[in-house]
Amino acid sequence: MYNKQKEVKANLEYLRKLFIMPDSPDKFIEFGHELLEMIHDFFQEKGGIHSAITLPELSEIFDQTAVPDRPHLIKDVLSEIKDKVTAHSVKVGNPYYIGHMISAVPYFMILMEMIIAALNQNQVKIETAKASSFVERELVAWFHRLIFNKTEKFYQRHIQNPRVALGNVTSDGTIANLTALMVAREKAFPPDGDFPGIRAAGVDRALRHYGYARGVVLVSTRGHYSIKKAANMLGMGEENVLNIPVDEHNRMDVRRLHRRIEALKEQSGEERTKIIAIVGIAGTTETGNVDHLQKLGKAAREVGAHFHVDACWGGAALLVDEYRDLFKGIEGADSVSIDAHKLLYCPLSMGLILFKSERDLNHLMQAANYIIRRNSVDTGRFTVEGSRPFACLKPWASLKIIGREGYGLLFKSAKQNTDSLREILDGCGNFEVLNLPELFILNYRFIPQSVKKQLYEWDRAKKATRDRQKVKALEKNIRKVNHIVNALNIKLHKALRRDDSTFVSRTTLESTRYRPQNIVVLRAVLVNPLTDKAILQEIVDTQNRIGQEIWKEFKAAYQRILKEPVPGKRRKAQG
Amino acid sequence: MYNKQKEVKANLEYLRKLFIMPDSPDKFIEFGHELLEMIHDFFQEKGGIHSAITLPELSEIFDQTAVPDRPHLIKDVLSEIKDKVTAHSVKVGNPYYIGHMISAVPYFMILMEMIIAALNQNQVKIETAKASSFVERELVAWFHRLIFNKTEKFYQRHIQNPRVALGNVTSDGTIANLTALMVAREKAFPPDGDFPGIRAAGVDRALRHYGYARGVVLVSTRGHYSIKKAANMLGMGEENVLNIPVDEHNRMDVRRLHRRIEALKEQSGEERTKIIAIVGIAGTTETGNVDHLQKLGKAAREVGAHFHVDACWGGAALLVDEYRDLFKGIEGADSVSIDAHKLLYCPLSMGLILFKSERDLNHLMQAANYIIRRNSVDTGRFTVEGSRPFACLKPWASLKIIGREGYGLLFKSAKQNTDSLREILDGCGNFEVLNLPELFILNYRFIPQSVKKQLYEWDRAKKATRDRQKVKALEKNIRKVNHIVNALNIKLHKALRRDDSTFVSRTTLESTRYRPQNIVVLRAVLVNPLTDKAILQEIVDTQNRIGQEIWKEFKAAYQRILKEPVPGKRRKAQG
Repeated sequence: MYNKQKEVKANLEYLRKLFIMPDSPDKFIEFGHELLEMIHDFFQEKGGIHSAITLPELSEIFDQTAVPDRPHLIKDVLSEIKDKVTAHSVKVGNPYYIGHMISAVPYFMILMEMIIAALNQNQVKIETAKASSFVERELVAWFHRLIFNKTEKFYQRHIQNPRVALGNVTSDGTIANLTALMVAREKAFPPDGDFPGIRAAGVDRALRHYGYARGVVLVSTRGHYSIKKAANMLGMGEENVLNIPVDEHNRMDVRRLHRRIEALKEQSGEERTKIIAIVGIAGTTETGNVDHLQKLGKAAREVGAHFHVDACWGGAALLVDEYRDLFKGIEGADSVSIDAHKLLYCPLSMGLILFKSERDLNHLMQAANYIIRRNSVDTGRFTVEGSRPFACLKPWASLKIIGREGYGLLFKSAKQNTDSLREILDGCGNFEVLNLPELFILNYRFIPQSVKKQLYEWDRAKKATRDRQKVKALEKNIRKVNHIVNALNIKLHKALRRDDSTFVSRTTLESTRYRPQNIVVLRAVLVNPLTDKAILQEIVDTQNRIGQEIWKEFKAAYQRILKEPVPGKRRKAQG
Repeated sequence: MYNKQKEVKANLEYLRKLFIMPDSPDKFIEFGHELLEMIHDFFQEKGGIHSAITLPELSEIFDQTAVPDRPHLIKDVLSEIKDKVTAHSVKVGNPYYIGHMISAVPYFMILMEMIIAALNQNQVKIETAKASSFVERELVAWFHRLIFNKTEKFYQRHIQNPRVALGNVTSDGTIANLTALMVAREKAFPPDGDFPGIRAAGVDRALRHYGYARGVVLVSTRGHYSIKKAANMLGMGEENVLNIPVDEHNRMDVRRLHRRIEALKEQSGEERTKIIAIVGIAGTTETGNVDHLQKLGKAAREVGAHFHVDACWGGAALLVDEYRDLFKGIEGADSVSIDAHKLLYCPLSMGLILFKSERDLNHLMQAANYIIRRNSVDTGRFTVEGSRPFACLKPWASLKIIGREGYGLLFKSAKQNTDSLREILDGCGNFEVLNLPELFILNYRFIPQSVKKQLYEWDRAKKATRDRQKVKALEKNIRKVNHIVNALNIKLHKALRRDDSTFVSRTTLESTRYRPQNIVVLRAVLVNPLTDKAILQEIVDTQNRIGQEIWKEFKAAYQRILKEPVPGKRRKAQG
């Protein structure tokens, strides 16, 4: 079918016309209609979130190993995209898709993308991005203020001050976190006498000059993998990201942080360790919880470390006053990262990194004769990336069109959906909620009611006895049953993927009530404003129906555990 | 004016409707018309490339220090964008704008951006990007083949093989180069016995384990600043980017490379140096020239270094057979970076990094339970970034719509424009062309004909004599005159920016016929297919007219130099 496309003979006049916006909008609108239809088709079907096509089948569709020689008509390529690409894309905007942090985007975002592409500004340099450089700075100031809330005078002085940068617009949160840790590293090993600083001299000479064996970054076990990636990239070594365990609400255990810090301080001589940064999370990717930012900030200041808050997921909630309490202490951070393609509902992808001190990004300042002269006003002096699109137009316009009030309503809807899902799961009985949801993420698992009761009973019995042997036997039973339920939930998740009418994601946590045992959980991210209670009920019903089906395969194994003797008096097992 | 926008009371029903594509295309087309008009206005004016508004004036337009509270109507925000942003954007698509690597983009790219935003796939993971992951792999294979030209069997085996990656789609060329050097670093210091590799252990332990004082990267003085940035980021230190001088055609001087390598080899004990990578350029950002890739590759293999080719600018020319010779030896590279927003005429921004060995990117392989499981097929296992947009659709579609043939015609037009500009400059007499243009970039300067003749005469006289004193005096004169002409060209460039009807960029080179003296040059990048000979004539006429005006201010200083005595017989000075 795709080979039937009409090949056209290349000719320069035809090509040049492609570079000119059609004079009458007819042509554009002709394609626009076609696109709109394509987009409608895509959104309107309910089922088939991931499309039924298998990955091997897709491999066969996209198997052309060489670039096409001849030009093809735009309309043919559009219909190829419709048949091959759009038809087999993931319906991330579908209200039944509640598994990842991306969801529906407002349709005006498409208009913004049109403007961005038509203007095609390159943010690296004022010669290639004029007003757009100022838009970027304005947006950065807005978020700086939301987080750090300095004086009006501070913002008036710096909002368009080209000698400093209050932050960068990045391609995503990973690069935002990388930028933060890069600044932290430069600040930890600055120029000193003959030593030109880590930037010029590298990690090895920096550690030697300052008499350290290593530099470390402390983050909870919920830390996003980009922190480890950054430590690798920055030459500190992945081993030097030290993960502090979390409490049962998925927040860094502050006592254990202090214990770890004390242990690091005691290291001396050849083991002497520099704490480059402490990273707080607001909220965690897996569970949506927020660290005790105030306490973490205090700890960071005590040891002279950079305090970075990874708020890629939750940061945008600062737009709404009622969430400020949750983020208490974020104003004490040295840097904060936020993603626009998450709670700001922008299309992929854009991150933000904000620095409390307007001078921090000067540590990264760079120049090149041909592109960003030292005394220029070019934004590219401060960024990790080089060429960058005018992506900031999207959140800038969206904050005007939706406003803080509007975002408040969107987050309220997300909160209601989170609460609703929890109620529906509790009401069903065959599920167990496993986190305290703070920012629209709920972890839970399928577990038949009787099995859940049995686990709770064993847990009560364990707490009621002092018989060590009995405790051990009960713990062993709990572990074994959880092992079965883990397998059940993996199987359920795979079956849900095959069913494909709804979608949640899946992860493994060690921070539930069964800690330290790893528990497989289903993970719902409830931010799509088109999702409602009725839809959530349908999603849970589907999971319950398929879950009960699959449980049949596990029942025998479960019953074998029940028959194992537990020392001491034992109640009748259920289920 | 902007304060007159209507604020609307936020309500969830209104907001939810924003997330649904309008059922009838009317609404969309209403905005589409408005947008189209906006875009037309923007492109149709000839003059005012950067808009007359000053930067302080722009600072006053974009001075809102806080996020808007209330929602605003989409149409109001669109007209605000029209008045404040579009009106003051840089007309990078204007055919009189020939100063940077971005130019016009075909209008179908706007359709592609609409599709990308509507689908909103996140390339990090198959659960958020299904067909789009396969599109990305297909595109990567196309470029891998263009560069490395392995067997059809190789591509059939790996084009959709999820266990490896032939390359990554990145946010830009800087991240592409960073990815290459990161892989080079991991390969230079791999796991070995108890040593877990540089990735886990960091730069410091890696150097110690392998007994090196430092790791270095060799690149010519034309190297893009992203190489230095990467060395900083990767913890190697900017000092350890060793710049090899170029010949007068802006190619790395291979003899000096070998001399440098020999000197590095001689370092031992506490100075022992590991050559991590040799970087070749194809073509250079400032001059568009291509290094002797074959010779550089040979040198890299001899010292066991990774050979990276930064082809961000020129790489796409491989689409056209007649350019293959220029890139001879690129097939011997270990990695090659290419930007889609340069010679592929895509909107900003997208880079590509290709690795000859399908196993190289496994050095970066990472995993996280909740997002990219180890045994998954997720593209995010290999990338520096985390969340990534479906940007690859743009070059993928463009290579179909334009085809290799079409790109051939576009490059032919770029070549013709480069040749035309050269002829026009030579014909005028008051300009001096200062590079051998290979890939559509021309460096030149304004210099009154008589002054140019005088410089050439001194140069001839210098070569004709053996009188050391005379040579010195002549060289001094040449230097002094160049000093004046440098100042003239800086002033001219600023005046052209004020005139604002045409645009070229400006840089400083030490590789011209006046080496080692730094020469200020104007830099034209001739890739816009809407630019033609008549337009180039106008651009040169403008520069000539303004240049002659400004020369009057410099004439007296020039004449003072002419009056200085040169030992020996001296001809009458001209001008």
